[in-house]
Amino acid sequence: MSAHKKLTTDEKIHAMAEEMARQALAGNEPLFQVPSRTLANVNFNEVKRIVELGEGKTAREFFNLGQSKKYMQTLLVAEACKRLVAAGKTNSIRDLYYMTKHTIASTRDNTFESQDESDPIIEDLEVTLDSLREELHLFASNKGALVGDLTVVDGGDVIDCRRMGTGGWSVPSIVEPDVIQFREHEAKFVLLVEKDAMWRRLNEDKFWKTHQCILIHGGGQPPRGVRRLMYRMVNELKLPLYVFVDNDPWGYYIYSVVKQGSISLAYESRRMAIPSAKFIGLSSADVEKFQIPSEVTIRLEDNDIARAKEIMAYPWFVNNKVWQKEIQRMLSSKVKLELEALSAKGITFASDEYLPRKIKDKDFLD
Amino acid sequence: MSAHKKLTTDEKIHAMAEEMARQALAGNEPLFQVPSRTLANVNFNEVKRIVELGEGKTAREFFNLGQSKKYMQTLLVAEACKRLVAAGKTNSIRDLYYMTKHTIASTRDNTFESQDESDPIIEDLEVTLDSLREELHLFASNKGALVGDLTVVDGGDVIDCRRMGTGGWSVPSIVEPDVIQFREHEAKFVLLVEKDAMWRRLNEDKFWKTHQCILIHGGGQPPRGVRRLMYRMVNELKLPLYVFVDNDPWGYYIYSVVKQGSISLAYESRRMAIPSAKFIGLSSADVEKFQIPSEVTIRLEDNDIARAKEIMAYPWFVNNKVWQKEIQRMLSSKVKLELEALSAKGITFASDEYLPRKIKDKDFLD
Repeated sequence: MSAHKKLTTDEKIHAMAEEMARQALAGNEPLFQVPSRTLANVNFNEVKRIVELGEGKTAREFFNLGQSKKYMQTLLVAEACKRLVAAGKTNSIRDLYYMTKHTIASTRDNTFESQDESDPIIEDLEVTLDSLREELHLFASNKGALVGDLTVVDGGDVIDCRRMGTGGWSVPSIVEPDVIQFREHEAKFVLLVEKDAMWRRLNEDKFWKTHQCILIHGGGQPPRGVRRLMYRMVNELKLPLYVFVDNDPWGYYIYSVVKQGSISLAYESRRMAIPSAKFIGLSSADVEKFQIPSEVTIRLEDNDIARAKEIMAYPWFVNNKVWQKEIQRMLSSKVKLELEALSAKGITFASDEYLPRKIKDKDFLD
Repeated sequence: MSAHKKLTTDEKIHAMAEEMARQALAGNEPLFQVPSRTLANVNFNEVKRIVELGEGKTAREFFNLGQSKKYMQTLLVAEACKRLVAAGKTNSIRDLYYMTKHTIASTRDNTFESQDESDPIIEDLEVTLDSLREELHLFASNKGALVGDLTVVDGGDVIDCRRMGTGGWSVPSIVEPDVIQFREHEAKFVLLVEKDAMWRRLNEDKFWKTHQCILIHGGGQPPRGVRRLMYRMVNELKLPLYVFVDNDPWGYYIYSVVKQGSISLAYESRRMAIPSAKFIGLSSADVEKFQIPSEVTIRLEDNDIARAKEIMAYPWFVNNKVWQKEIQRMLSSKVKLELEALSAKGITFASDEYLPRKIKDKDFLD
């Protein structure tokens, strides 16, 4: 729906509804096209360096026994989102399920039986309207926190992220420009930390102050809000992003999703993926480089090995010599390493030695 | 160790170490007493209305093949905590595991093989020293957020919780008075919301402003930091606490833990349990009282029924007619109800109708 590019979300939903009414009133079968979110329709764009959705579409037809329920559900979800947008309110995807669930008049059938039915419909609507979930006024769980050399405006409130104490600013799920605006910053880079424990270590040590940066964590795989906020910081504030994760296949995967996007959310890549992101560690070379004691390394499990081999074969890693070497070295060493293992070298080792040396030496993987 | 009551954590650890050295130098078998954390040693204190640890203790002996490893581990953890306290630093319990894990000289044995070994040792040390984990400078995961009519000082930074945007102040795991201090507040009550989705609904609707309150959530079962912070707000700011949870056995259990404490953390009750807490909803009476449509209720599963019956038999519920009626009504209705189900009555129904009516009518369960 490229014609919708400059429309507001409200207008897009309105246009979709009008089109359905027009088809029906003209005596035609009501239907709309949904970009397909299957693996076959996902590509790696070598130029943009992101995972993208292809051009494939499937029709969703009202007069098709196998599709009419989903047709109805999509329009119900669209209607509920229009109500949210009109009211200037946001809701969780679970609330949306309850908003759209009802018994169909003079039947015993419900529009939705479980949230498992409404969640994919939301994704369908996102791709159909070319609107982020956040633009539909829907949010997922809140996860992640931020401190550092940056002031933001969040829902009208000025938040000085330099003065957020030990807890930090809780990153909202919806960080679109109408809710979150950036103000003054002197940060030189953004550091994404996989886990909140290491984030708190760095915050307590005032690492962000000594190194003039923004510290953010996503509590594991960063949620959409954290990814979108990092995207905005990198693109609007022109900051480099460094990714600091466990040295295991899961850590590699977090980096990969942040950088290139994921297959399941391929349609979001161009608003979330950050191809310029750099991997600061932990690297499989660090055990030797920083003399990490061997008793804090963890033996690779069979599923780690299988997962590492899968990741090596990703189109964006397969021809990348640096990454082939990195993953191969982890496989040969037969061990992985958690961020917390750095504590074995001293309480503030990560803040005082590991990260400063990596940054000074520009010892990044790309 | 009642003699330790007025000692600092540092002094308590020092005293424990000195006692061990004294025993050894006197040619006696080194041992210390650990209050036992077994179900048999947990009681409900009818006067204080909290779950408490009894007087039972077990010795931990160095010259006992079955206990010497735990003896060593406890002293290692104590030593690491002393280092943290001395450095004025805090760490996660996973970091602590790595700090204390090493290969014992001239053997191939490690002090700890996994965090499953170090976590219970931390709990032993907490009860032995009569120190909260937070006083040992250890934290668990960060979870939960707060907004409302309150200013706090967090690690020296002044946080105005009235101006925290959509994300709120991320409640730290450690909220002891040396880290978090309360400043001005005009709040009339604290509202604990089970889930962040409803918390965000209420924050977006500025419920805390209209009703002059403090809104807090703990992302499900509130973590220690959130429980301890609520305890401090109730006791230091003299505020009532209302608990707003799903109408299911898990919601009842959250209320029960907040109010009376839990069996597994019985030794923390007197610093975390809030016997004055009141249950604001969702109640099994609400479906009728607020005409919640039946299609957003959820049929009870067998394990819900079993769990509800267990909760009915808790010493603090078994003689409470109001609670027997509440749980019995849920069982008879055969359905449970999630907070998000209120969305079926309108986007802002919880903020504009449900909670105001409950508060106005003082329609609480106690």
